[in-house]
Amino acid sequence: MTKQYRVLIDCNDEKGLVYKVSSIFFHRNLNIISNNEFVDKTHNKFFMRSVVAGEIDPATLKQELLEVLPKNANLDVIAPRKKNVVLMATKESHALGDILIRYEAGELDCRIVGVVSNYDLLEPLVSKFNIPYYTVSHEGCDRDEHENRLLAQLSELGEIDYIVLAKYMRILTSKFVQTYEDKIINIHHSFLPAFIGANPYKQAYERGVKIIGATAHFVNNNLDEGPIIAQDVIHVNHAHGWEEMQRQGRDVEKIVLSKALKLALEDRIFVHTNKTIIF
Amino acid sequence: MTKQYRVLIDCNDEKGLVYKVSSIFFHRNLNIISNNEFVDKTHNKFFMRSVVAGEIDPATLKQELLEVLPKNANLDVIAPRKKNVVLMATKESHALGDILIRYEAGELDCRIVGVVSNYDLLEPLVSKFNIPYYTVSHEGCDRDEHENRLLAQLSELGEIDYIVLAKYMRILTSKFVQTYEDKIINIHHSFLPAFIGANPYKQAYERGVKIIGATAHFVNNNLDEGPIIAQDVIHVNHAHGWEEMQRQGRDVEKIVLSKALKLALEDRIFVHTNKTIIF
Amino acid sequence: MTKQYRVLIDCNDEKGLVYKVSSIFFHRNLNIISNNEFVDKTHNKFFMRSVVAGEIDPATLKQELLEVLPKNANLDVIAPRKKNVVLMATKESHALGDILIRYEAGELDCRIVGVVSNYDLLEPLVSKFNIPYYTVSHEGCDRDEHENRLLAQLSELGEIDYIVLAKYMRILTSKFVQTYEDKIINIHHSFLPAFIGANPYKQAYERGVKIIGATAHFVNNNLDEGPIIAQDVIHVNHAHGWEEMQRQGRDVEKIVLSKALKLALEDRIFVHTNKTIIF
Amino acid sequence: MTKQYRVLIDCNDEKGLVYKVSSIFFHRNLNIISNNEFVDKTHNKFFMRSVVAGEIDPATLKQELLEVLPKNANLDVIAPRKKNVVLMATKESHALGDILIRYEAGELDCRIVGVVSNYDLLEPLVSKFNIPYYTVSHEGCDRDEHENRLLAQLSELGEIDYIVLAKYMRILTSKFVQTYEDKIINIHHSFLPAFIGANPYKQAYERGVKIIGATAHFVNNNLDEGPIIAQDVIHVNHAHGWEEMQRQGRDVEKIVLSKALKLALEDRIFVHTNKTIIF
Repeated sequence: MTKQYRVLIDCNDEKGLVYKVSSIFFHRNLNIISNNEFVDKTHNKFFMRSVVAGEIDPATLKQELLEVLPKNANLDVIAPRKKNVVLMATKESHALGDILIRYEAGELDCRIVGVVSNYDLLEPLVSKFNIPYYTVSHEGCDRDEHENRLLAQLSELGEIDYIVLAKYMRILTSKFVQTYEDKIINIHHSFLPAFIGANPYKQAYERGVKIIGATAHFVNNNLDEGPIIAQDVIHVNHAHGWEEMQRQGRDVEKIVLSKALKLALEDRIFVHTNKTIIF
Repeated sequence: MTKQYRVLIDCNDEKGLVYKVSSIFFHRNLNIISNNEFVDKTHNKFFMRSVVAGEIDPATLKQELLEVLPKNANLDVIAPRKKNVVLMATKESHALGDILIRYEAGELDCRIVGVVSNYDLLEPLVSKFNIPYYTVSHEGCDRDEHENRLLAQLSELGEIDYIVLAKYMRILTSKFVQTYEDKIINIHHSFLPAFIGANPYKQAYERGVKIIGATAHFVNNNLDEGPIIAQDVIHVNHAHGWEEMQRQGRDVEKIVLSKALKLALEDRIFVHTNKTIIF
Repeated sequence: MTKQYRVLIDCNDEKGLVYKVSSIFFHRNLNIISNNEFVDKTHNKFFMRSVVAGEIDPATLKQELLEVLPKNANLDVIAPRKKNVVLMATKESHALGDILIRYEAGELDCRIVGVVSNYDLLEPLVSKFNIPYYTVSHEGCDRDEHENRLLAQLSELGEIDYIVLAKYMRILTSKFVQTYEDKIINIHHSFLPAFIGANPYKQAYERGVKIIGATAHFVNNNLDEGPIIAQDVIHVNHAHGWEEMQRQGRDVEKIVLSKALKLALEDRIFVHTNKTIIF
Repeated sequence: MTKQYRVLIDCNDEKGLVYKVSSIFFHRNLNIISNNEFVDKTHNKFFMRSVVAGEIDPATLKQELLEVLPKNANLDVIAPRKKNVVLMATKESHALGDILIRYEAGELDCRIVGVVSNYDLLEPLVSKFNIPYYTVSHEGCDRDEHENRLLAQLSELGEIDYIVLAKYMRILTSKFVQTYEDKIINIHHSFLPAFIGANPYKQAYERGVKIIGATAHFVNNNLDEGPIIAQDVIHVNHAHGWEEMQRQGRDVEKIVLSKALKLALEDRIFVHTNKTIIF
């Protein structure tokens, strides 16, 4: 079977981009497996994700593409590989468990190199799956010290492609976020931007909403304000107390988070102006 | 066919309420057509909506029920009748048109006594349905003066059960709201409490959400913060500009608003602590 | 403003198609407004819809494209124009009314040249919108004779791009269907392929489903088995009798049908092996 | 804390049932925690589920209720207890894994006494959770013999309240079904009654549907035709091959099945005329 490459292009829009790119694919005898483009007319930005198959050196392909693309273009030619993923969680097991079951079934094209938590509660679950579990307690230390310990632990896990916050319930500082910029995926248990912050189900219950939801997003410096990757909702009614909303909401949370992780592992997400383009 | 009555009870919860109420129904030989109860344990409140059929004077039934209910109980015994509804709109026709088509088909158990707008744009549509149209322009007058004119117009339309804001795009003052307390139903073009205020589709687009929605709610003094009656959403993606979100969102708006109106006309909505209980 | 053209390509897949097509666009100085491709690997079929803007004679563009496409390619270069649409209905007004309100608001890029029905019941509604209404009664004549009358009436309405069956409740013969091949869009009031045939809401009620739906599809010779364009559903429960399912289902029907019509008017639908590819 | 009992009534409808039942609750000083009623007017059937709290001997309560209910009433007074559940699966782990993660988290009020499969593939997963795994291979034996082995294995597991077919991919004979009548919950990977039988995702792909779904239902003698408990769907498009439909469909399958199991464990499901009433 011939090798496949994912070509990711993100640049200023100009006439002829599809032609120039597909010209290289054609003359290099590459087969287009799938192809998606999008032009953000507001910002005059062009996004393209192609999966091509054929015999080529990816560095060569990259070089040839760069020659026809506008200056300052972002370009990646990726030979699919298992990405390294770290999961972080606190006490709840539903989102973490959903990822573990999928991982065990071979559904996720990645290597989970460890689970990091501020409690040891989830260790029995994680250890079933033969994945290293690291308890980095926040007790008896301030936020900065705790984060330094976290960062130290993470740095021991080697190169990390994505950190998935599978209901990690502590706020990360900008230092942490900058260290792993564009690599942290969080699940927020509300339909953002509604109910930012703590206890969104209680907030939702107090507000009397008829729908609750969950949002998977990249983490940036503003809590719950990073680029949204995926969202979904379920209907609720007056008979749902906030604990029942929380219980039913967990099903949405875990599905949405796993979906976002899968999109990231397949290099399907572009981020631009705090929004995502997803192919 | 025997007559039907809607019995609506809203009182402090205490043991025996279902027994006491159903005892009166039984001994008065009333048939229970449908029966719904809910106890809000947080506030110790009991809500009940029964539809009963039989031969009885509603005043008598009300008196007997009051004798067994806790003090300060809210009680209604309603012989279904066509309610008087006024529609208010500005420029967009989708929500207004949806109600008109349903009305024409006999789907709505009400009498639409008029449409009031600050523009004359929708008059051609409304006049097709032989419903009086009143243009009360806001031009050349301040908010208070405009509202006084609106209130004067409305008062000429006789007793009003519900005012439906079918995309009426001006903010109402508390004077107006208090005049028609608990009688004004609005459609907000977002999934509240996200994107309160103006241009929610633009806000949603800027935020990069993957779902947009609409919320029908009673209007109180705080813009977009009244009790929510119904909500729904649709999925969107990066390819949707805000105008496209707006266009697709209209379908959600009109369905949600018509649904809320129908619930109100059937006396299915209780309001308590800024939330709705809907049977 | 430069003119826009919709380029629709449907042909056997082979290497270089995107390159060859975009090359013509580029050298003809056409700007790609939007571009979508899909390869059906099972059938080795390539589908492409491009919207391009620029100064060109569409016949010339078509000729140039044909030269680079595989033999037997289907190719259209369409200068957007208002299509001619005929609506057909029987007794229910919700789907028809939804289209009329959208039409009145300018939302549908078409010309509704008439409404044809086997009853005169909907004439009062349609005449509000100044659209000709033709009653072609089926009483006192057999199916063939009735269809001959229908076909005679339709042929008087000039060239027809689409016939929309907005709850037209009689089965069409293959003669009728072949006369307007690929031009008839129907709304079936169930989630096809469940509940083919008559009274789907009764069937759904009897089966005890927890979801009901609607399906917009092109009509072919097998009742309810043509290519599906759009579907949607709503949740129901044991308390919904079939009439209530029918009432709530109407909201799904009308939204789904209007959505399908809009897709057709924008030339977004390809049909292949009884399936639709929708860009 | 006082003890709670679930009272389940299913009988012919007649006037005064709510009164008579609530009268006993009141005079026995029982507090109504929740109360739901439904009358199936087509079949003149009354269904009621009450949760009551107080000091009473459940046998006494049952006797008193029987005295006021119509003859042939079905009545249960249940002191909540952990039910015994057996899971059956074949090769796929998603539905099984979802139940195991919930079970581990204490979300399911039951005792999983074992997992039975016709393969040993899922043993490594199940054994992580310290639940007995029984491989009952179907190889080298005919259907009857295989089922006899299954039944023998199941009978060794003690009293079973529910058998959950978490993607058990073999058809059960009526002998098996009758042995565990009303106790077998299956997840079918389609939106029933569409795509009954084998390979529903392939069937759905061939038919070109725009929505796929899953159905949890009780099993009766007709394959996939038992009473439906829960259903849900997701949208798909032309770009989804059947394998992708299958992959995405698994998320719906597992959530719907776990939801159905939870409803059963909480005694919320009545079955009548091949339909479910769910409170």
